[in-house]
Amino acid sequence: MTANLDKIMKPKSIAVVGASTKEHTIGSDIMKRLQEYKFNGKIFPINPKGGIIEGLQAYTSVLEVPEEIDLAIIVVNAKFVLSTIDQCHQKGIKGLCIITAGFKETGAEGAEAEKQLLAKVQEYGMRCVGPNCLGVVNTLPEISMDGCFAESLPERGHIGFVSQSGALGGGILNILKDLNLGFAQFISIGNQADVNAETALEYWENEEDVEQILLYMESIQNPANFRKLASRISKKKPILALKAGRSAAGASAASSHTGSLAGADKAANALLNQSGVIREYSLKNLFSTAKVFANCPIPKGDRVAIITNSGGPGIMATDAVCEYGMQMAKITDATKEKLRSFLPSAASVKNPIDMIASAPIEHYKQTLETVIADENVDMIICIYLPFLGLKDIDVAKALMEIKAKNPQKPVIGVFMTKSEFFTALSDMDVNIPFFMYAEEAAEGLHRLNQQRLWIERPEGKIPTFSNIDKAKAESIIKQSIADGREQLTTRESIDVLDAYGIRVCKSGFATTEDQAVSIADSIGYPVVMKMTSKTTSHKTDVGGVRVNIQSAEQLRAEYQDLISKLEAKGLLDGLEGVIIQEMVKGNREMVCGVATDPQYGHMMMFGLGGVFIEVMKDVTFRIAPLTDVDAKEMIKSVKAYKLLEGARGTTPAQMEQIEETILRLSQLVSDFNFITELDINPLLISEKTGEGIAVDGRIKVNMTAAKEQFGCGTTCTCCH
Amino acid sequence: MTANLDKIMKPKSIAVVGASTKEHTIGSDIMKRLQEYKFNGKIFPINPKGGIIEGLQAYTSVLEVPEEIDLAIIVVNAKFVLSTIDQCHQKGIKGLCIITAGFKETGAEGAEAEKQLLAKVQEYGMRCVGPNCLGVVNTLPEISMDGCFAESLPERGHIGFVSQSGALGGGILNILKDLNLGFAQFISIGNQADVNAETALEYWENEEDVEQILLYMESIQNPANFRKLASRISKKKPILALKAGRSAAGASAASSHTGSLAGADKAANALLNQSGVIREYSLKNLFSTAKVFANCPIPKGDRVAIITNSGGPGIMATDAVCEYGMQMAKITDATKEKLRSFLPSAASVKNPIDMIASAPIEHYKQTLETVIADENVDMIICIYLPFLGLKDIDVAKALMEIKAKNPQKPVIGVFMTKSEFFTALSDMDVNIPFFMYAEEAAEGLHRLNQQRLWIERPEGKIPTFSNIDKAKAESIIKQSIADGREQLTTRESIDVLDAYGIRVCKSGFATTEDQAVSIADSIGYPVVMKMTSKTTSHKTDVGGVRVNIQSAEQLRAEYQDLISKLEAKGLLDGLEGVIIQEMVKGNREMVCGVATDPQYGHMMMFGLGGVFIEVMKDVTFRIAPLTDVDAKEMIKSVKAYKLLEGARGTTPAQMEQIEETILRLSQLVSDFNFITELDINPLLISEKTGEGIAVDGRIKVNMTAAKEQFGCGTTCTCCH
Repeated sequence: MTANLDKIMKPKSIAVVGASTKEHTIGSDIMKRLQEYKFNGKIFPINPKGGIIEGLQAYTSVLEVPEEIDLAIIVVNAKFVLSTIDQCHQKGIKGLCIITAGFKETGAEGAEAEKQLLAKVQEYGMRCVGPNCLGVVNTLPEISMDGCFAESLPERGHIGFVSQSGALGGGILNILKDLNLGFAQFISIGNQADVNAETALEYWENEEDVEQILLYMESIQNPANFRKLASRISKKKPILALKAGRSAAGASAASSHTGSLAGADKAANALLNQSGVIREYSLKNLFSTAKVFANCPIPKGDRVAIITNSGGPGIMATDAVCEYGMQMAKITDATKEKLRSFLPSAASVKNPIDMIASAPIEHYKQTLETVIADENVDMIICIYLPFLGLKDIDVAKALMEIKAKNPQKPVIGVFMTKSEFFTALSDMDVNIPFFMYAEEAAEGLHRLNQQRLWIERPEGKIPTFSNIDKAKAESIIKQSIADGREQLTTRESIDVLDAYGIRVCKSGFATTEDQAVSIADSIGYPVVMKMTSKTTSHKTDVGGVRVNIQSAEQLRAEYQDLISKLEAKGLLDGLEGVIIQEMVKGNREMVCGVATDPQYGHMMMFGLGGVFIEVMKDVTFRIAPLTDVDAKEMIKSVKAYKLLEGARGTTPAQMEQIEETILRLSQLVSDFNFITELDINPLLISEKTGEGIAVDGRIKVNMTAAKEQFGCGTTCTCCH
Repeated sequence: MTANLDKIMKPKSIAVVGASTKEHTIGSDIMKRLQEYKFNGKIFPINPKGGIIEGLQAYTSVLEVPEEIDLAIIVVNAKFVLSTIDQCHQKGIKGLCIITAGFKETGAEGAEAEKQLLAKVQEYGMRCVGPNCLGVVNTLPEISMDGCFAESLPERGHIGFVSQSGALGGGILNILKDLNLGFAQFISIGNQADVNAETALEYWENEEDVEQILLYMESIQNPANFRKLASRISKKKPILALKAGRSAAGASAASSHTGSLAGADKAANALLNQSGVIREYSLKNLFSTAKVFANCPIPKGDRVAIITNSGGPGIMATDAVCEYGMQMAKITDATKEKLRSFLPSAASVKNPIDMIASAPIEHYKQTLETVIADENVDMIICIYLPFLGLKDIDVAKALMEIKAKNPQKPVIGVFMTKSEFFTALSDMDVNIPFFMYAEEAAEGLHRLNQQRLWIERPEGKIPTFSNIDKAKAESIIKQSIADGREQLTTRESIDVLDAYGIRVCKSGFATTEDQAVSIADSIGYPVVMKMTSKTTSHKTDVGGVRVNIQSAEQLRAEYQDLISKLEAKGLLDGLEGVIIQEMVKGNREMVCGVATDPQYGHMMMFGLGGVFIEVMKDVTFRIAPLTDVDAKEMIKSVKAYKLLEGARGTTPAQMEQIEETILRLSQLVSDFNFITELDINPLLISEKTGEGIAVDGRIKVNMTAAKEQFGCGTTCTCCH
């Protein structure tokens, strides 16, 4: 299917099917908007009664129209939509925008109708926006299409906006003018039966008129495709997303650590993050950021200079800049000298540069020009507080004049002045974004910097390790399935990890006391003894882990004690035996795992493990499959990274080996897609070598999916 | 000194000393503002040249004025200020507002002049605002004083505002009108030589016209006094503060854990928190919150209902409400039934209540009225998105009409509409705060809820424990001072804690191998051996801690090994000996400590200890002395609280005993004020008893301060 939406977004002719003369109906409003906004093409109102609608001859059907039609905007009652599509097809129309509601959003019957709708669209080789949407907009002068029934006419600009909520899209059209922002194109995707956010992304990738892409999403239809597209396109133009529905997303009921810390919103967050999409958490911030991208180049670094005529706001701006992790620029001596040559002695030429309250417009101009030229400065915040005698709009114009001559660095204005100033600005062509408060400016610079880091970020590769024993892993998993167990035993789990080349600690399995001793003797003391059971999942609850066993004698005592404890609790039946493990010394316990989100698939987790895992929640997520860059970033993004680096004389961890562990896990769940949960907890950092060693592991599979992948039920003996 | 500022804030007559006919001077502007704002009293311009200024007869000196003067607003050159104060005194003037700059802010000479200024003010029994300030405002109709040289006239309202930045105060006056907010009183404290934020707080405590207090602060002059006043007054009226200068505050150079995690901004944060002051981090939020408090009662609980005509914004509001930790109200069945009786079938009567896009004004009214009456609802967000046919301002008026009849619960409007709506509102009397975005509304409700929790919070008491051995602690500390050591040894530190009734682990001190064994024998194995040294502060760096020593034999081996290691590193000279300690079993290591901030004094810290302390930074701070409620809150406020509660079969910690530990520490540093740093790390939670046991302790004192407190140098032998 082509992502070319030209027939919908750049039509030469539009039929409004369901056009009406009745005031305050969508069929009337769409007609009005198209004409008010001076659509640069032909409009054909379609109404079974014919007549004149908004001054145009109406046709009783699209089939009556004597000319070619590119786009049909459909607003008829839901029950007529399918037959309308048939007629459009007969007429050769390839673009549809179905505003009509009453489909999937109303329940099962509507969903069925929507299915039929999509089938027709696909069969006919059409593309379709909606149903249940607000319409489409293209402000390009040679198109000039407002095919929306919102209250306001759209402003011209260079934002591509996709909204999953029609109402919201309308609200936004209403307020954008105040923000001095405008759309290039707007698509209200509604139920997104056909065209969705991904289609829009792909379509806009090479649309020059669209300089940044804004998304309002409540769901992501095809996460893998979204990631592929967004991570490519976000390198060319910023993509900002407001993803709603965070709180509704309760963590999935899962028995593993990774599962309980995951959840759909963390998955969405990981996906957006890996795709280079800037996630905003409020509409307000979405638009503030858009305003910044609309008027600023991407900076070369993160060093910020602040120019102000008042101390307090300068301090507040400094606070905000530092809190976003950016640097306060170190102004060069040459710059300082130059500033001193014209600023009064009471002024401060250190960053923040305080020109003091008496600063005339000339000082604003000279200071800004001087600071832009400073090689230590990447971005600039320019603060103005009104004092007697100066007009805010004059100061703003002066700054914009300097900016026009020096466009290379981002400049953001903070004007703590009356709202009339901002109203006046909204009718002007600006090249600097102006805000009321310093914090908004700092946030804007932070977003610019984030985009810079994304552009500079290497793309990374999804590695494939060849030194793995896939067959062995498969046979272990098959045995578990044959036994009807979705949860692999600890031993099986560790063996699967081992087969995938993950460093696990040396161990053996014993079912008797004597066996245990013999294995321990061969590994060498001290050892750890862990019970493995088919019925008890959290071993520490029943005292099933005994550490630092120094001798055969001690091992025997611990073994006997465990048996008697289990017996007392009536848990002896589930006991499979005990694992005797090498005792890895180290007190840094990490966790590495996989959870499965029903929509986003496998989520990889890494972070601080051990008893702290659910208390500190110092973990990070990424959607699988991972690139080497993803894995590197995961390790660096948790607070516990400092522990890995080695502090107070501890051994630095082998970062590359840990990175490889994460990547091998990613490959494992990619090979065995039916693995639903996996925990390596702890991944103990050996004090001796700095290796991350899987000391304990748990793997859970989805039985049905596993049988499907293995083709069980037909050729093997494991399914009955 | 009285906090009565009536002479300044409610003068019957004002002399403007330095009044001028020259345009765009402060002396001219103050005269204009006073008259434009229609000051309800007499104005006497004072200018050595006499003449007519702004239509009034000018006098050459205050002494020439034939009537009584309450307030002198002084704008003369800095060099004439002191003599002007003398004249004011001669005239019997008790209130000064010194706008003139050129004092402390300019350096040492100015600071000296300011000192003299304050001395005069105090000697003459005056109160003085400034110098270096913007002026004062009182909008009460019977006063009507605008004694400020800001661009805009102040709006009438019920906010008391104190600004430490004059420029900022002016900026704020400019923008408040847009926000539909007004001042009751405004004080630009400038250099706060005399009147400061604390004076204003105290003055406004019983000023009925001031319903909430807003502070812009860069520093807090007397933290203890501020805390006393604010914690009392904040129970009567909300106090909101913007405290700037967070990032500048680098952590003080300190060798302890507590010290390195502390820092002035954490201290300010703790102080504001303990005082019931709502801290905001941007001007924008400061005013949003003020707008909410101006139009909402304090709620009875935290259950929020959302009413909307559009799904998307309803979801976004839900997200925001949940993220602030508030609850989505469970609408009663009776309410649901009532809503169903008039809303269309496509509407959702569950929370968020979606009346759908077609909702007419009547549905807004009925729904709001019904939901306000629901006993399960404490607060309400009402969302409106513009659709064809409805006028936003009409919807707002309808909501306000219902609110007027049902004032008992907070209602916040979210109107995603044009800025004209907000402009129109700013000229109206409102009883609902309206915002553009759902997140702003949720934040507002969160602040209301925060104020509710503060009002409901018990006051708490600062306990004094009598079962302590202060004399013993004193003698130990004196010995350290006598030795010239600011850092007490581990042994001394533990003994001081023990003297204050803090549960420390059983131990003894040995200087030989034989002694060590004899002590261990009496404590019982297993034991821990720790070296104590006058030169090495971080013991683990040199392997100075040996744990789980099971026998006399092992102890001897470890002892010999330690000695040879120290010898090899050349550190043997500093060795005092070893501490033999009972080995407390448990893997939950907390930290409890004290740091000293030069301005705020002792800061108590509690949180997760051990190796994680500086990585996870899961610690909380309070300013000493602590109440029992403070200590309880500290324990509950860290993430590691979940560990203390006992999870996965671990023993629940003895919360009251840990609380007491913190309180005893607070008493210790209150008794020995010169203690600058103190760490109990770890405070190990015994797996057996749940007690918090001080396993290691470090105490550092300030030698000079200690000698002062002990009166050393005169009566004892410890100082030379």
